[in-house]
Amino acid sequence: MGELFIGLLHYPVTNKRGDVVATAVTNLDIHDIARTAKTYGVSRYFIINPMRSQIRLVDRIVEHWIAGYGAAYNPDRGRALSTVCAVEDLSEAIRRIVEITKSEPSIVGTSARKGRKTVDYRRLRSMIQEDHVPYLLLFGTGWGMTEQVKDLCTYMVEPIQGPGDYQHLSVRSAAAIVLDRLRGTEDERSMS
Amino acid sequence: MGELFIGLLHYPVTNKRGDVVATAVTNLDIHDIARTAKTYGVSRYFIINPMRSQIRLVDRIVEHWIAGYGAAYNPDRGRALSTVCAVEDLSEAIRRIVEITKSEPSIVGTSARKGRKTVDYRRLRSMIQEDHVPYLLLFGTGWGMTEQVKDLCTYMVEPIQGPGDYQHLSVRSAAAIVLDRLRGTEDERSMS
Repeated sequence: MGELFIGLLHYPVTNKRGDVVATAVTNLDIHDIARTAKTYGVSRYFIINPMRSQIRLVDRIVEHWIAGYGAAYNPDRGRALSTVCAVEDLSEAIRRIVEITKSEPSIVGTSARKGRKTVDYRRLRSMIQEDHVPYLLLFGTGWGMTEQVKDLCTYMVEPIQGPGDYQHLSVRSAAAIVLDRLRGTEDERSMS
Repeated sequence: MGELFIGLLHYPVTNKRGDVVATAVTNLDIHDIARTAKTYGVSRYFIINPMRSQIRLVDRIVEHWIAGYGAAYNPDRGRALSTVCAVEDLSEAIRRIVEITKSEPSIVGTSARKGRKTVDYRRLRSMIQEDHVPYLLLFGTGWGMTEQVKDLCTYMVEPIQGPGDYQHLSVRSAAAIVLDRLRGTEDERSMS
């Protein structure tokens, strides 16, 4: 079974107007997505942000929950946050994955729009299960990842779509849904 | 098709020690779950909190996004927040559902532990699709809903379980996963 990694990208992403920007880390992006990552057996959750001060902020929050007061107050939170690793760019995330797994990851992007390289969940689920290469699943903050990042991805997952036309989930909710679709327990997934 | 409603319960819920407490509304519980609700065609998202000041807070936040400055800044957010309705207790939520649909809802609880009345996602999904009664899906804040609330539920959904033993998702992530399992588009759900 291929190891699964996830990354939350704060740069380069687009804003509402389509400009390329860096976004700020938010506390609940760390906690919610780490808890989801831990639930679905993700090996490491990379928080990708080019600002040194933002990386230090993530490290301080993680430290509080895995070794500080938070560790005694709520050890379950520490178990989730121990998956978190703040890195300054996508290449550093990839380098860390290669260090851990000794192989280059397949990079899978997420987007609210269908495009080229889109692969459905069923197929991606079995690829992750059967392949020996690691997978890095990338989520964009802001208004989503840039075309330049999408170009680096081997695959893009299908956009998440409900019964209507509203497609503006938070990145925290999108990460939860995508990981459940890719790693949720089998008997609960057979609901076609 | 039965209409689907959701409720986020702030009282009565338990804390870490098992005491019955009221929790505070958090801004991202409003936004994230409203965006998920809108994505999956939920008719109304009840925020259930006994404190008048908390209800006023929710009303003010919603107002900002559907009529205030937020409505011009990001209209998509307003569309999601227009599903939000703050009520003081579960009976008021039920009363509102009866007003809207002219029938009593089946109440479905959520829990991290399997117990009596547990129904699987596949069955619940088709019940909601085929029944003419409305469904109210309840999520607990804090350490989850009390036994007294579970007693009021007709059904409980299966706990969400990943490949490991970690079961501490945020309520925002749990709501996203449960709604995707119950209402996600069909072709992406057939992945057994």
